[in-house]
Amino acid sequence: MLNSLKQQVLEANLALSQHQLVTFTWGNVSAVDRSAGLMVIKPSGVDYSAMTLEDMVVVELASGRRVEGRRKPSSDSDTHRALYLAFEALGGIVHTHSRHVTIWAQAGRDLPAWGTTHADYFYGAVPCTRLMTDAEINGRYEWETGQVIIETFRHWELDPAAVLVNAHGPFAWGSDAKNAVHNAVVLEEIAYMGIFSHQLSPELSAIQRSLLVKHYLRKHGKDAYYDQ
Amino acid sequence: MLNSLKQQVLEANLALSQHQLVTFTWGNVSAVDRSAGLMVIKPSGVDYSAMTLEDMVVVELASGRRVEGRRKPSSDSDTHRALYLAFEALGGIVHTHSRHVTIWAQAGRDLPAWGTTHADYFYGAVPCTRLMTDAEINGRYEWETGQVIIETFRHWELDPAAVLVNAHGPFAWGSDAKNAVHNAVVLEEIAYMGIFSHQLSPELSAIQRSLLVKHYLRKHGKDAYYDQ
Amino acid sequence: MLNSLKQQVLEANLALSQHQLVTFTWGNVSAVDRSAGLMVIKPSGVDYSAMTLEDMVVVELASGRRVEGRRKPSSDSDTHRALYLAFEALGGIVHTHSRHVTIWAQAGRDLPAWGTTHADYFYGAVPCTRLMTDAEINGRYEWETGQVIIETFRHWELDPAAVLVNAHGPFAWGSDAKNAVHNAVVLEEIAYMGIFSHQLSPELSAIQRSLLVKHYLRKHGKDAYYDQ
Amino acid sequence: MLNSLKQQVLEANLALSQHQLVTFTWGNVSAVDRSAGLMVIKPSGVDYSAMTLEDMVVVELASGRRVEGRRKPSSDSDTHRALYLAFEALGGIVHTHSRHVTIWAQAGRDLPAWGTTHADYFYGAVPCTRLMTDAEINGRYEWETGQVIIETFRHWELDPAAVLVNAHGPFAWGSDAKNAVHNAVVLEEIAYMGIFSHQLSPELSAIQRSLLVKHYLRKHGKDAYYDQ
Repeated sequence: MLNSLKQQVLEANLALSQHQLVTFTWGNVSAVDRSAGLMVIKPSGVDYSAMTLEDMVVVELASGRRVEGRRKPSSDSDTHRALYLAFEALGGIVHTHSRHVTIWAQAGRDLPAWGTTHADYFYGAVPCTRLMTDAEINGRYEWETGQVIIETFRHWELDPAAVLVNAHGPFAWGSDAKNAVHNAVVLEEIAYMGIFSHQLSPELSAIQRSLLVKHYLRKHGKDAYYDQ
Repeated sequence: MLNSLKQQVLEANLALSQHQLVTFTWGNVSAVDRSAGLMVIKPSGVDYSAMTLEDMVVVELASGRRVEGRRKPSSDSDTHRALYLAFEALGGIVHTHSRHVTIWAQAGRDLPAWGTTHADYFYGAVPCTRLMTDAEINGRYEWETGQVIIETFRHWELDPAAVLVNAHGPFAWGSDAKNAVHNAVVLEEIAYMGIFSHQLSPELSAIQRSLLVKHYLRKHGKDAYYDQ
Repeated sequence: MLNSLKQQVLEANLALSQHQLVTFTWGNVSAVDRSAGLMVIKPSGVDYSAMTLEDMVVVELASGRRVEGRRKPSSDSDTHRALYLAFEALGGIVHTHSRHVTIWAQAGRDLPAWGTTHADYFYGAVPCTRLMTDAEINGRYEWETGQVIIETFRHWELDPAAVLVNAHGPFAWGSDAKNAVHNAVVLEEIAYMGIFSHQLSPELSAIQRSLLVKHYLRKHGKDAYYDQ
Repeated sequence: MLNSLKQQVLEANLALSQHQLVTFTWGNVSAVDRSAGLMVIKPSGVDYSAMTLEDMVVVELASGRRVEGRRKPSSDSDTHRALYLAFEALGGIVHTHSRHVTIWAQAGRDLPAWGTTHADYFYGAVPCTRLMTDAEINGRYEWETGQVIIETFRHWELDPAAVLVNAHGPFAWGSDAKNAVHNAVVLEEIAYMGIFSHQLSPELSAIQRSLLVKHYLRKHGKDAYYDQ
């Protein structure tokens, strides 16, 4: 069942490794079939080098119940579910501990929009979530992680594309699994550049509003014309 | 038409990838045929791994009109044109978002000449452009980007070889497409080294004038003898 | 004798190179056979590219006497022995000068637990040892290095998994040689991230206690369920 | 003539590239035959990928005259000669612009001995030369570069193994060309680690004298026993 979606999820997981976003098994990608109410996600604890289509796990979006697959779904499965249920536009989700985004997440800081590379993909700063409460951590931790992400975007201007979970690491998403990985790669790139732009100019302010809008909309707006 | 130039531009675009100056399709190289008044440039949004000679686009320098090619020219095409029209000596132009040069551009800072590696290629600091006005951003943005670069060099001592576009990234150029890529690689290297030389010695002043002149001229002067 | 253990130690030493934790021969892995009272360790000064099973050296744990092998054991052999004798749970030990952990060791600073990547593996800060005395340095230096490590953990809450030797570099360990290398890779990763999280937020405090406990125990506790 | 030495010099030059110490042709290695009074050195401006035994140049140590080879010797040839003539123990010399050592050279700072990785190879800080005078720069520049290096070591305690030329980059040396490259690799490694150890602990003082002596002598002293 859902073989095409499984194939996409498998390839997207392997792409994490090719883009050097993961150490060992520290990452996972999922994709959703909205009409079936199902999500396909990476299994827990399987090496990327040995992963096959059969390892992919099918999970019911509403309940979290595994409906197919011999393996356990990624332990971050409930965070993925929470995000799909909250954001209708999401087709694929990526979670990694990619180095430079995780550095910002550990520092507990939003990643500011400091250049057009950022503006080409993200409409303003990529926010960092608030610290979770002990009750959230000791409760349904992975599900609550999703809720804290959702809370972060409550008054957001446009569709978000990524978030930094405080003291943890990034989630990024997109129209499908491949697009989600693409955004995760960009996020890592701008996180790297941001660390050192900040070092060179500690008082640096955000990119001009007009430049942010121009770059974001020439690529993502309804009259988009941009693709370098 | 212009098959030899197309081949040079194709190879130069692929070299960006080999020198790890680009993520995804974030870069473009062009070259000019002055006698024909034409420029060959990378197409918009094509993966480096799939790019062929036939994808190259021929654009009229004066008008920006596409005169050959099945694809759209790079969306930065008008910036390239502006530079060719302003600077007679340019044979090839490169634009990238290479990591460390972009870090300086985002920080809005000139890249100082802090060593002989820099002096071997660039005659003094590589300047960062002023911020663009909202009118420039909302007008013919890519063309105006070129104009701001030209303005930056209005009172320049020698032929410039590169610039940092504020909040954006570098353009570099040279006698042909290959030489332009060479300069883009050097620029990335000195941008990297500059970040950390500055970190070690925050009050660091520019290289001695005599050493700058010596290194630049032993390589680029009329009596050049240097090639390591 | 101990061919299976030798094979594990050989593979673990080669894995150091694959994970880019070593320059030249700057690293060594050992493993222990508790029932035999013997340790297998990398020989001194042999290139990773030329290392074979026959190069592995068998050393008596209690005395340090070489009981098999044509080569000299790693000069850090006595440090390994000291750790096996002090910590019953250790099955394998790794020593490297991996870049970013060594940076912390040279700075003489504990590596704080600043994120869940850290908490997934290490229960709190990875400590840095005190400076050794001249007497220790001029005495049985490698053995005394082990003693200083042991002293560091005298009042430790849980099983330690790694240490930074002041002005030197890391030792990491685990249930066997492979697991020790795994921990050494993680340590290098969090050391890298820690440098820059600290740069972004110089006043950063340690991860919340509840989050540390949650992450460590969901992976290492008796009810562990976590494997991404 | 000197085919064996040429082969060593060729291999050492190629090793620079394998160890990622060079961009383009920015580096050169030489070796000396003391009895013949000759030096073999890399030619000027030849790509590492195309370099052959026949490209190596033989230069008379005393005069700088090319005695064999169809190509021009490296333009840094006179610096190499000056060092061989001043330091009897040198068998091979390397010059690079390797990233992190050049960062220290550009910053005009000695590279302090901050750990045992350093102490295993260099007996104390690796010094940075004074700035050259305009007369030296405008005179026999490459020869004067050598003289400034020699001046730096006038009151040195032990055989030096490397130097940072101010605003330029490193020279390293050793018993032969291969050993010189080995030292250049180590120098790059400790330069990298030094930048960030200094970042973590800006007031960091040098490694304890006893530890420096211990590590240097257990590897280089007459009773050396160390090789990890």
